[in-house]
This record gives sequence, structure tokens and C-alpha cells, in this order.
Amino acid sequence: MAMEDMVPACEDLDKAGFWSVECWGGATFDSCIRFLNEDPWERLRTFRKLMPNTRLQMLLRGQNLLGYRHYEDGVVERFVEQAAENGIDVFRVFDALNDVRNLRTAMKAVRKAGKHAQGTICYTISPEHTIGDFAEMAERLMDLGSHSICIKDMAGLLKPAPAYQLVKAIKETCGQDVLVHVHTHATTGVTLVSLMKAIEAGADIVDTAISSLALGPGHNPTEAMIEMLEGTGYKTQVDMARVMKVKAHFDKVRERYSEFMTSFTGVEAGIFQSQIPGGMISNMESQLKQQGAGDRMKEVLEEVPRVRKDAGYPPLVTPSSQIVGTQAVLNVLMGKYKVMTSEFADLMLGYYGATLGMKNPDVIAKAAAHSKKDPITTRPADLLRPEWDRLRAEALALKGCNGSDEDVLTYAMFPQVAPKFFGTRGEGPRNLSKETKPAPAAAKPAAGAPDGKSNLTGPISYVVTYSGKAHNVTVAPGE
Amino acid sequence: MAMEDMVPACEDLDKAGFWSVECWGGATFDSCIRFLNEDPWERLRTFRKLMPNTRLQMLLRGQNLLGYRHYEDGVVERFVEQAAENGIDVFRVFDALNDVRNLRTAMKAVRKAGKHAQGTICYTISPEHTIGDFAEMAERLMDLGSHSICIKDMAGLLKPAPAYQLVKAIKETCGQDVLVHVHTHATTGVTLVSLMKAIEAGADIVDTAISSLALGPGHNPTEAMIEMLEGTGYKTQVDMARVMKVKAHFDKVRERYSEFMTSFTGVEAGIFQSQIPGGMISNMESQLKQQGAGDRMKEVLEEVPRVRKDAGYPPLVTPSSQIVGTQAVLNVLMGKYKVMTSEFADLMLGYYGATLGMKNPDVIAKAAAHSKKDPITTRPADLLRPEWDRLRAEALALKGCNGSDEDVLTYAMFPQVAPKFFGTRGEGPRNLSKETKPAPAAAKPAAGAPDGKSNLTGPISYVVTYSGKAHNVTVAPGE
Repeated sequence: MAMEDMVPACEDLDKAGFWSVECWGGATFDSCIRFLNEDPWERLRTFRKLMPNTRLQMLLRGQNLLGYRHYEDGVVERFVEQAAENGIDVFRVFDALNDVRNLRTAMKAVRKAGKHAQGTICYTISPEHTIGDFAEMAERLMDLGSHSICIKDMAGLLKPAPAYQLVKAIKETCGQDVLVHVHTHATTGVTLVSLMKAIEAGADIVDTAISSLALGPGHNPTEAMIEMLEGTGYKTQVDMARVMKVKAHFDKVRERYSEFMTSFTGVEAGIFQSQIPGGMISNMESQLKQQGAGDRMKEVLEEVPRVRKDAGYPPLVTPSSQIVGTQAVLNVLMGKYKVMTSEFADLMLGYYGATLGMKNPDVIAKAAAHSKKDPITTRPADLLRPEWDRLRAEALALKGCNGSDEDVLTYAMFPQVAPKFFGTRGEGPRNLSKETKPAPAAAKPAAGAPDGKSNLTGPISYVVTYSGKAHNVTVAPGE
Repeated sequence: MAMEDMVPACEDLDKAGFWSVECWGGATFDSCIRFLNEDPWERLRTFRKLMPNTRLQMLLRGQNLLGYRHYEDGVVERFVEQAAENGIDVFRVFDALNDVRNLRTAMKAVRKAGKHAQGTICYTISPEHTIGDFAEMAERLMDLGSHSICIKDMAGLLKPAPAYQLVKAIKETCGQDVLVHVHTHATTGVTLVSLMKAIEAGADIVDTAISSLALGPGHNPTEAMIEMLEGTGYKTQVDMARVMKVKAHFDKVRERYSEFMTSFTGVEAGIFQSQIPGGMISNMESQLKQQGAGDRMKEVLEEVPRVRKDAGYPPLVTPSSQIVGTQAVLNVLMGKYKVMTSEFADLMLGYYGATLGMKNPDVIAKAAAHSKKDPITTRPADLLRPEWDRLRAEALALKGCNGSDEDVLTYAMFPQVAPKFFGTRGEGPRNLSKETKPAPAAAKPAAGAPDGKSNLTGPISYVVTYSGKAHNVTVAPGE
């Protein structure tokens, strides 16, 4: 969404009494430079100015920052420092594999900047995952210096009973005073009930979205949350009159974005069967269609859980959802692990981190053979060499780069997109309200959420090793 | 929905294990003869044949049956007898004012036919209504011979805390063994949580709709209900595999009905502020626009609670919602009670029954003056003379009437529509799947739900008395 469409709502949002407003992260950053010709750092500074009373929050992919690869510690430290300086108060830090080692540097940097470090558990379901495992992870996140714990349910899989048990277990393990923040998506239709149960178990903060932009793949509606609690003994500190003004504003704005909205705001209970986030399914569908194999979706849906099991049951969230999904498609089309993406090989070999489940040793061996790499057990970023100076030199060589650390970080996050953006930045943000069409159809994939359920915001290139030869495979975002 | 679009789902619905399937009532009956050229009695017999294992359920407006006026007892008895004979097992009987006297004849007839009599409480919110009042009403419904008690939340106003308290109170008052059946609409976004709380309080049966046709003004999704309960200690007896087949079927069918669907399946939390059902608001908007006063909606929204208070806080459900709404519009346009519909005068004078709240004596006096009638405290139908023979004679005089009691009842319910339907019935049901357009735009209002939140399915004529003269006013359904 263009900044101009959010500015008029900021005063009401700021004065409504929210614990925090999440306003920055991977997908917004990407959309800013890819489609809106808007400097994401400038956007953040504007939010800071317009919302002086409310914590500004962002989602950070741990060692991946806002990108799809592991960055070296120095880059992570600089990113957090700049984000804090430009206005972020609360850093919600997660790792797609729930490997807390991948959060360590970011969490430390957040604390150093004097900001709120929120350690995050990606909630997932598997035969290996227990409530106890998640509670233990919460404990390790506390050891890293978390100021609060987030339960991040990116696929809407968190049902009421486990929501209750999970919050209870975290409070019992980490202490009743530890702030527990619950993040769910409405996709499966049950998570407002889950939030009620989480609150009964002691959850302190829950995520919602204004009803104009809620439900479906989004969050549960703020207004429903406030009303739901009446008479229960729990209440929010949110001012409904302000909320209704925010709603009225975005009711109008949403019309301009209809092209990017999902047409379906119903529920997708099928996700409980497949345990595959909705956005991942559409990605795989588009991959199959590109191969003229659109009729083999059922096989792929059956293959995903097997691939996930082989990989040690990673949660399915960016980037693991794309990596597992693409491998499942390849297995169906080419034969089981006959072709392997280099990303999947890296996943099997530990280059994304450790998983909770045991990995299939046969597939590890195949991955090693495919990629000619050895399995690792160390923290992946420990293998990286300092890269800041190189990134800085490359960024400064680009036309339009202003030489700031912010610009270097923009380039580091999105090296393909940043050069063009630096070149056109001077023209100022696109004024969507003056365009006849809302925005080009090519921009569509950006409408996805920043986490597991979403499409990628840009094409990802894989190096596929097949019969000993390397092939470049580009996986474009699904429509 | 045309019968042809439901037939393929019947076997799965029948074998899924539902306590009952609601498949008949005012709006379906009306749509059959008004738009589909389909005999509603034949439809019922077909359902009976295709669903031998599941209770068939209907919604009955007590003494109003499926119409908008009070029928004499003999007609009520014959209607129930025929409905039972043609296949209905469960009669959910309600009265718009919650006047149990208006349920008595119907309940007695249901018991006489050996069927399940479900006494119904229309849930509403007002300064006068307490949980205790509803529990007491449940007790009176038990006295009438109810086999179960339904809490009917037609506007989505039932929040989790009162849902819990209400079910608890009914069980405590009427006995823990009394079946409590909870019916909510999803409109306000909180009622799945309310159902969870109702279940925790001991509710035995809850209403849902298949996800393809759920949410927004409809019900909560069946699949979400089943999944929600996992691990809570409660469970449904519903077979998810059958449910998924039903979903797949209606996912396809719904495309043909897109014209009739509400475009908004989000939540309307504003209903908690106004306490006015969504469908009633669109009705009033259309009335205002017809008078060139579309800009006065805010005044009308403020006037509705005042009119409702004057009328003793009736629940807002067909037909009281239309009567109160139209009067509020007239008050704003013409001055307070300067013009009064004869229906509103009847409501004030007790001709629809008694309300829980005290009525405003000044407005009663005005109503008496307007309509030249006296207030009554007796059961309204006690004033009616037997009308079956007259209705029968009128029906039999119509071309195409087959002389059956069913046809007489069709005519009795919809005297304006039945004549045309009898004439064209021989041509058979419209085959929607072969029509290029889904159905004529004129049919749109029929898409509303059969109760309070919906538009009327046809125009209603009011006699308006103004300065001593009677005027006919027709209120057309809103778009």
C-alpha cells in the first residue's frame, strides 16, 4: 500500500491505544522499492513522525533479515542499528526452521540498540512437534534476552486447544510475567477462537487488523476482538471510536487496491488436512502449470508431507515453504530426488540451520552428492566471511545511491531491485490515486503476506543439479 | 437455490452425521414459487427421499407461519400437519416479539403430528432484556411442550460471555438434559467464539453452513467448527470426508449464484453500535433514497433505537425489523409519529403480541387515534375468525390449483404470488444451469436470509394514516 493511503489514518492509529503497530518488514520494504518507487527508510521515518505515541514494530527473518539468504553478522548488526535509529521499537525476530542460533545476532543487536527484542516461535504441526518443544524453545529465546515471546501462526493452524496449552506452557516455563504475544492468520476460520483461548491462558497481546483489511489470508478483525471480550473479564485498551475512524478510512482506500486483494475471504479448512499454507499451494500450482502438468497437483499435495518429513519437519514459512514446495514438485515431475534444487540440498545439509525432526540420512547423502558439499551442524552464518565492505562498495557504485548505510542495506536486501530504484528514486513515490489503473498487473505477487502463506515477491533462481550437471531454474511467483 | 443444484449433495449431507438439516422455510418457499417455478412441497418430498437418515428441519414464524400476518389457528394446524406429512421432522418455532402465546398453536400441532417441537428464543439486546428473562422464556417454552430450546441470534449480536451465561441459565432453569440448540449468524465476526463458549456451557447442537456458502450474513463454517473442537474435549459426530465432498460441490455451484451473493463476507462490527441488523439498514437506505433523502441515514440510525424503545423493545427480526425501520424512516422524514404505518400502529396496540418492555403510552394513544382501533392484551389470533374455508375456496378458483391442502396453504402464505405460480407450474422448474444469465436481476432480494437481517423477498404494502386519511404505501425490497 502506498504511503499516501496510510498517512491519513496514522493519527487515529497512534491514539487508539494499540500496544504496537506493525508497519515495516520484508514485503513492505520490497513493495516500496519494486512497485511504489518509495524509499522504505523514508517511509519508516514518516511513520515515526506521525505515530509518536505507539511502538512501531517490524518482522525480521533473523539472520536472513528481509532477504532469502543468510547474511554475515556485521550486516545483521548494521541493519538492526539502522532500523532502530530510523524508528523501529519492537523487533519480532524469527527463523524459518526455529533454529534459535539464527536469531542470536539479531536479538543481541536489538538489545544493544535499547529496543524491544521479541523472540518468535513459528508454530507448526508435525508428528515431532509437541507443546513441550515450543515451551523449551521459548526458554531458549528468553536466554537470548527476549523481552517478550511471540507465537507466530503464519498458516492459521493454531487451534483453540493447543493455543491455550501453548500459552499456558510458555508462562509456566518462562514465568507468568513474560509477555506472550500471539500472531495468527484467519485463513482457516478458527483462529479468533484460538485467540480467545490464548487470552484465557494468559496471552498479553494479540495481533489483529482493521476489519476493512482483515480475514481470509489476513488477520482477525480488530473490532471483533474488542467486542468479543465484552463481559469476559478481559478487555483491550483500544479506543473503539478511533478504530471506527480507521475502518472508515480503509473502507474507502481498499477499493483502489481491489486488484491486489484476494477475492476469497472465506475459510480454507482444507489447510488442516494438507497442513500446507494457501500461498504455497498457489505457488506449486503455477509451477506445475508452467510444466504442463497442472493435473498432478494431488500427487504434489501428497508429496509435500513426505519431503517435509525427510527434511526434519521444518515449519513451512518463507523461505522453507518455497524450498519444500519446489522440491515436492520436482519429485513428482522428475522422480524422487532425481533432481534437487541447491536450496533444498542446503536445507538437507544444515546450511539453513537445524530442524527439530531427524532428517532422512539417505536424502542427506543425495544432497551431499548433488551439491558436492558436506553436511554442517554449526550455525550457518559462522561460515560466512565479512561482507559489509564489499556490499558497500557495490552499492556506492550504483547511480543514485546516496552513500548512506540505509542505501547499502537496501542494496544488500534486494540486489536485483535496488539499482533501478536508486536510479528512479528522485522522481518521488508513485501517486496511485492519480493513476487510472490501480497499479500494473505485474505487481500482483507483492500483495502476498510477508510470511509463509504468501507468494514470493520476486522470482527466485535455483541451481538444479541433475546427473552431475548444474542447471539454472527460475521459479517465478504464482499468480 | 434451485433444487437441481442441491440434489447431488444430498447423499453426503445425509450420511455426514448432522443432527438435522435445515432445508425449508419462508424464504426458500417464497423463492421456489416466485423465481424458480418449483413446487416447495415437491421440493420437501424430494429432500425427504434423498435424505432418509437425517432429520429435516424448518423455521416457522409461529402464528405467522411463513407469512407476514397472523393466521387463524385452523390454518396453523393444517400447515404443520402438511409439513410434517411431507417430511419435516424438526419445527423451529419462533415469534418476532418473543410472545410465547404466538407459538402455542404451532407447538401443539407439532407435538400432535409426533414431530420435534423446538421452542425458540429470539436473542436481542436492550436495556430491558436480561439473561434471566430469556431463561424464564425458555421455561415457558418447555411448558408448551418443547423438545429442545433454540437460541436464535439472527443479527450476530450474541457475544461469547452472554452466550455462555445464557446456555448455562437455560440448563439451570430447565434442566441439564434439555437440548439447547444455538443458531448464530457470522455477520459481526465474533459468533464462532460465542459458539465455543456456548458449547463450554453445555450447548448440545449448533448451526453451521458449509464453508462455500458461509460467513458474512450467513453462518459460521462447518469445517471450522469441526476443526476448532479438536483437543477441547468436545467433538462433533460429523464425518469430515463427507463434508469436504459437500464443500467441493457447492464451491462449483456458488459460481452460478454470484449475482445473488453478498460481495462482502467480512464483518460488520458496526452492528454492535447500532444494534440494527445489516439487511434492515439496506432496506432503510433504499426507502430514504426513494424519497430523495439518502443523506439522512444518520438521523434514521439514531431514530431506530428510540422507536424500538417506544414499542417496548421488540427483537428486530421479520417482520418487526421492517415495521420499526419503516417507522423510523417516516419519523425522520415527516416528523415524529406524524405519519404511522398501520403495521406500526398494530405493533403498538398489541396486534402482533406482547413485548418484554413497557410501551410508550403517548405513542399507544397516537396509534389508537391513527388506526381507530383499541389496544389489546389478548393473544392476537384469538380475535381471528376461521378462514380455512374461505382460503380453500379462493385457492380452488385459481387456474392450475390442484385442490390439495398443500396448494391451499401455498396460496394462504403468498396470495399475490401463488396465482401466477399455479398457472405456470406445469412447465416445471426453471433450469438455471441452462440459462445464460444466472437469473434475472429482479430476483436479487431473494438472496437475503429468511430472518431479521434479510431484505423482504417481496414488496410489502402498508396503509399509512396521515391526518385522518388512509394512504397505501409500498415498501420495495432494498437492492
